[in-house]
Amino acid sequence: MLVQKYRDMLGNKSVIRSLSEFATARGKEIGYENVFDYSLGNPSVPVPQEFTDTMIRLLQEKNPMELHGYSPSLGITSVREKIAASLERRFGLPYRAEHIFPTSGAAGAIAHAVRCVTEPGDEVLTFAPYFPEYGPYINLTGAKLKVVPADTKNFQIYFEAFAEMLTEKVMAVLINTPNNPSGAVYSTETIKKLAEILREKSKQYGHEIYLISDEPYREILFEGVDAPYVAAYYENTLTCYSFSKSLSLPGERIGYVAVNPACEDAATIVQMCGQISRGTGHNCPSSIFQLAVAETIDMTADLSVYETNMKILYRELTDLGFTTTKPGGTFYIFPKALEKDAVAFCNKALKYDLILVPSDSFGCPGFFRMAYCIDTEKVERSLPALRKFVEREYR
Amino acid sequence: MLVQKYRDMLGNKSVIRSLSEFATARGKEIGYENVFDYSLGNPSVPVPQEFTDTMIRLLQEKNPMELHGYSPSLGITSVREKIAASLERRFGLPYRAEHIFPTSGAAGAIAHAVRCVTEPGDEVLTFAPYFPEYGPYINLTGAKLKVVPADTKNFQIYFEAFAEMLTEKVMAVLINTPNNPSGAVYSTETIKKLAEILREKSKQYGHEIYLISDEPYREILFEGVDAPYVAAYYENTLTCYSFSKSLSLPGERIGYVAVNPACEDAATIVQMCGQISRGTGHNCPSSIFQLAVAETIDMTADLSVYETNMKILYRELTDLGFTTTKPGGTFYIFPKALEKDAVAFCNKALKYDLILVPSDSFGCPGFFRMAYCIDTEKVERSLPALRKFVEREYR
Repeated sequence: MLVQKYRDMLGNKSVIRSLSEFATARGKEIGYENVFDYSLGNPSVPVPQEFTDTMIRLLQEKNPMELHGYSPSLGITSVREKIAASLERRFGLPYRAEHIFPTSGAAGAIAHAVRCVTEPGDEVLTFAPYFPEYGPYINLTGAKLKVVPADTKNFQIYFEAFAEMLTEKVMAVLINTPNNPSGAVYSTETIKKLAEILREKSKQYGHEIYLISDEPYREILFEGVDAPYVAAYYENTLTCYSFSKSLSLPGERIGYVAVNPACEDAATIVQMCGQISRGTGHNCPSSIFQLAVAETIDMTADLSVYETNMKILYRELTDLGFTTTKPGGTFYIFPKALEKDAVAFCNKALKYDLILVPSDSFGCPGFFRMAYCIDTEKVERSLPALRKFVEREYR
Repeated sequence: MLVQKYRDMLGNKSVIRSLSEFATARGKEIGYENVFDYSLGNPSVPVPQEFTDTMIRLLQEKNPMELHGYSPSLGITSVREKIAASLERRFGLPYRAEHIFPTSGAAGAIAHAVRCVTEPGDEVLTFAPYFPEYGPYINLTGAKLKVVPADTKNFQIYFEAFAEMLTEKVMAVLINTPNNPSGAVYSTETIKKLAEILREKSKQYGHEIYLISDEPYREILFEGVDAPYVAAYYENTLTCYSFSKSLSLPGERIGYVAVNPACEDAATIVQMCGQISRGTGHNCPSSIFQLAVAETIDMTADLSVYETNMKILYRELTDLGFTTTKPGGTFYIFPKALEKDAVAFCNKALKYDLILVPSDSFGCPGFFRMAYCIDTEKVERSLPALRKFVEREYR
């Protein structure tokens, strides 16, 4: 008999995917260049040429048995060393290889981190607005995801609601900064306050509350933003990283868990990840990608287009009267819809070939997300459509 | 608090890994070329040049955003089509893309297949001797692995014991042919009889019993062996495949689940795999490796060395008086030890710089495994050591 819980999930089609399919279909009618598709969060800049050159060099020069051989179950040691050294150089924490576990992207990192610190039935808290995949990611580990309502004023943390929900059952708190979908970056003040509460409650409950910090957008930060490195403020932090956005490699599934060296059980947690792997069938990311990201460790794709696009959209949206927090990073902006029902709002936008994602599935109704990881030229061409949409429908 | 079940696993060091570490350490003393290391099942022939050329061509010519972009959650459609077409061409079953789910190697395939068809607490049967990783692989899904004792005569199936253990609680049977560690290949007669029993018991219990067929050694078959394609004999077969051995790519983590098109729920099972993925953090194998294996789908590394090595060892071992089944495939041979305690036997062999793996962890005491995925020249040089070992210790 097929397992019902997975079978039941088959019907639930993601809103984002449906919209993206609509955009593709509409593109076939009027040319995809005329569809202002802000639905999908796929990087729109190429991987750096140096990365491609590194891959080709590895393929041409390295002994193929070594290159494509099994990695040790905790990942290739030299790769873990280079990741640790880069983190230490950039953020000042004394990471070593033993604190790093390479994974299949941030999704893989979260799958391991959550399994390390939660038994089935334990609670994991996250904050709205949140990446909807957290639902299945967490719930399928056996833990239960609970969502703290949003601070809709500036998309930091709604601490009153958080304090109330942070019961004894909560073993981990999952944050995502820079944030998908809001584009907000948690400030030093926010992180400090969060850390303080976690420390206090850990003590009160007599068990650690781990902070799982999902940071795939860490390198996409905009001018002047206060963007603290989360782990520097809380010892029991498991940082989940992906090279998907920084190097524009989402399909290659490469990232890592970095456990704060100040965490008492850091090295044990990494070794536990190796054991968890055996049951998830993960068994390390691709060897050549481990080697290639290690050799280009501090490199990123040319991410500047995202800030350019953000500025254009932010100015236009505020000009048009939208209420929106100015993104501090990512390639998302999250304005308030012009009517209460964001789904109705986004449906009306479709008439103008504007593909906007209603915020309901992010756990924060009344807003919409625009993923501006598209060409700047297209962002500019979308502005008249945006203006027309607002003027005809809401003036 | 860290999860105890993973923590408890940390102490259990694999016998194979310990022996391999011993071999490396001994190699530092006397030169690794003088250590006859038969411990590890790592491919010893390089990936075909055509595969490397395909990778380089993809990197040089394909749009990087497409090349490294997210695959659809069920894998890249064109890749699934090519895998299906190859299976149809080779084995005559009408596979289509909808029956194929690309995974991170055979380990990933098993992780998905088992989760599709077992609820926590359900039993999965396998047959000794078996790959020891099946223990954690299966048990960490929540199902329970039970091991049917070996048919030590010719390493087919001990059907009497199987019939007894095939209770109502068994939801899946996991087989591995060609087999690690025995090198045996299940005959058509064995597979037919197995299928017959599974059909009969499925009917009796009122639920399907799925056959999970782990086939990473499918392409390593020796002259004259009867090697049926398992799925052709049983409709509810989930074939788990890896390109690790066929293309010598174990570190790149690429394989698939192929669900028999005759299985009533075939397409549903594949879609369920996509859902299971969200919780395991797998999210498809690397895009470029999906594309590259699809373009070289019927190619293998030059696997002939394994048969050459097998013949040399089989002749020598039988000459020396060992009882051993002649391997039909893989790069393993599994002779009976010359004393009851295989661990003691293998420990004595160490004095002759022969690294042999005792069979206890394969669930079949009294034997030892030799992994002859090493250079033929080294196999030949090991023969005097083998002879000396037997003559001094057992004559």
